[in-house]
Amino acid sequence: MSMITETHEAVTFDTIAVAENGWAIDILDQTFLPHDHVIRRLTKAMDGGEAISAMRVRGAPLIGVTAAYTMALAMNENAGNKNLIAAAEILHNSRPTAVNLAWSVDQMLELLLPLESSARCKAAYQRANEMAGEDIATNLAIGEHGLAVLEEIKKKKKKECEPINVLTHCNAGALATVGWGTATAPIYLAHRRGLKLHVWVDETRPRNQGASLTAWELSRNNVPHTVIPDNVGGHLMQNGKVDICITGSDRTTLNGDVANKIGTYLKALAAHDNGIPFFVALPSSTIDCKIANGVEDIPIEKRQPEEVTWISGKTKLGKMERVRIVPEGTPVENYAFDVTPAKFITGIITERGIAEASYAGLTALFPEYKRQ
Amino acid sequence: MSMITETHEAVTFDTIAVAENGWAIDILDQTFLPHDHVIRRLTKAMDGGEAISAMRVRGAPLIGVTAAYTMALAMNENAGNKNLIAAAEILHNSRPTAVNLAWSVDQMLELLLPLESSARCKAAYQRANEMAGEDIATNLAIGEHGLAVLEEIKKKKKKECEPINVLTHCNAGALATVGWGTATAPIYLAHRRGLKLHVWVDETRPRNQGASLTAWELSRNNVPHTVIPDNVGGHLMQNGKVDICITGSDRTTLNGDVANKIGTYLKALAAHDNGIPFFVALPSSTIDCKIANGVEDIPIEKRQPEEVTWISGKTKLGKMERVRIVPEGTPVENYAFDVTPAKFITGIITERGIAEASYAGLTALFPEYKRQ
Repeated sequence: MSMITETHEAVTFDTIAVAENGWAIDILDQTFLPHDHVIRRLTKAMDGGEAISAMRVRGAPLIGVTAAYTMALAMNENAGNKNLIAAAEILHNSRPTAVNLAWSVDQMLELLLPLESSARCKAAYQRANEMAGEDIATNLAIGEHGLAVLEEIKKKKKKECEPINVLTHCNAGALATVGWGTATAPIYLAHRRGLKLHVWVDETRPRNQGASLTAWELSRNNVPHTVIPDNVGGHLMQNGKVDICITGSDRTTLNGDVANKIGTYLKALAAHDNGIPFFVALPSSTIDCKIANGVEDIPIEKRQPEEVTWISGKTKLGKMERVRIVPEGTPVENYAFDVTPAKFITGIITERGIAEASYAGLTALFPEYKRQ
Repeated sequence: MSMITETHEAVTFDTIAVAENGWAIDILDQTFLPHDHVIRRLTKAMDGGEAISAMRVRGAPLIGVTAAYTMALAMNENAGNKNLIAAAEILHNSRPTAVNLAWSVDQMLELLLPLESSARCKAAYQRANEMAGEDIATNLAIGEHGLAVLEEIKKKKKKECEPINVLTHCNAGALATVGWGTATAPIYLAHRRGLKLHVWVDETRPRNQGASLTAWELSRNNVPHTVIPDNVGGHLMQNGKVDICITGSDRTTLNGDVANKIGTYLKALAAHDNGIPFFVALPSSTIDCKIANGVEDIPIEKRQPEEVTWISGKTKLGKMERVRIVPEGTPVENYAFDVTPAKFITGIITERGIAEASYAGLTALFPEYKRQ
């Protein structure tokens, strides 16, 4: 595997890596998780587009980097203008709503179009590698800042043997990035540095990213964890079984409101009611400076009811099967995200440090976001 | 069908009824719900015991009444002492933790043992019919008191066409009782009296009683409803899409703390944060006078992890199939209930009226519960 691997040795799998041959791209095909660990080799730009649109790779940072490598694959096939523009177009259409995807493709276009076609392939791989490295560096920085919070919690524990109980929702994990993850970065770092911890993993209906992805990656990295239905977190917090909540964010307003996977808000309420710190870990690219009030202004995506009414799993005989769990004809609503107001958030863990969930807090770390 | 049917004509199905032959018992076999509507005829005491232990009937009130009819079936077979005591024993062991079950069997024993064996069969059916009738009357009274709350909410609606949006969790429905249900009684009454309403039905992981049972019975009674994952309620409340929450209760302390299906507490928190009334509908038999502090003193049942890791549904080909949705070896915790502190409860709807969730409120309606 490529140089990428060496820089995130904490995590025992690669979501994406340049293959041993130096040019093909190996991805972990996440559509088989958690039941099977399948590596898929991408050798053509078409393969990359398909991997993104079929959600073989997912998570905004990982989608962005996959798109960059897909542009490199296109240049490896044919570095002419026509092919360059066609590849960009295919990618733009593979998941039209993913912001990182468009950003990454446009970056590659800007870099490659002015170059001689003979120079494009090498430059494309180089930039894609850089983008992968930047993602890892950002997450590692988030991890270091989050680790300090976990160390503070450890100091308050009466017994050395007591683990820090972290609750997380959905998958803001290594699987959504090139390495470390966002919410999971402090967890992996703590685990590597010998801090005893245990993670409560919300199942995260309807797509069950907690039970299928977060549990899978924590297990692969030997981090003790327990999957719980989304209904359980409040009871655990009420009974002293959670020390800290850490989630990711899909979009964050400059006043500190956080849009994240549906159900995050309910856990923040329970943390607040029980005096438990609730942290959100995010790269600053998630901050949307154009929006002031999260609850009122962040548009919440509604997805297909089939995500709620059908579920996939493995039968007793080991066959993957999809079953309907809500009777036919039953109306269903499927909101993908909710907004947790800033007042319920103890702190926002970013690559530059920990910010109070407020305009003052965020712009102290990111002065470039200040309103003019 | 028997006289039971006539007294709860609001609901278009019977959970239990004496058959046309006047002595067999027909139950709705709930293990086939929501996919199939299967009536199962019980003709022997053994059938009744099996129906309870295999959860063909469920819900404390319905289990109690089924046990009473099972005693009647036993007396129909053989009204001797030996058979009477044996039937009671089988029932006691069919679901040992269900309080209503033991109460109902002991009542029947007390009634029947002193009687001549020739008089037992008739007396047993008579008492079982009475118990069924009492359950319906209790729930109907809960419905009337709850209806008044819904009518108040309706008055505040600006437009006549706007439905009252009720959110409920789990199944405190007609399926858990002989008729009407507890949390659903006000809903069915409102619907019958022409009050326009719409019910948000929490899926209720891990056993999905909302998606499979509550949705099924609302649909059978033509009450507009929408199934949502348990994660969604907070978002709906934040966005003005819920007017009132009504849930049931499994055990209630005299100071108004309510133990109910896991996840209830999270919805109560969200209702509180958004100024939405949160009501609990319960028969006074649910009140446990011996416990003062719900969070500290109500024991919370932990159930098998398989309820979380496996799920049943219907395949595309129409076959029922069970699939594993959490990878093998993943640790799972499965708490069945949580406790909602009284401070988050707007009111408790009982058969005698609506009580404030407090010692003063509950003992004003139920002075017999006052501490000596």
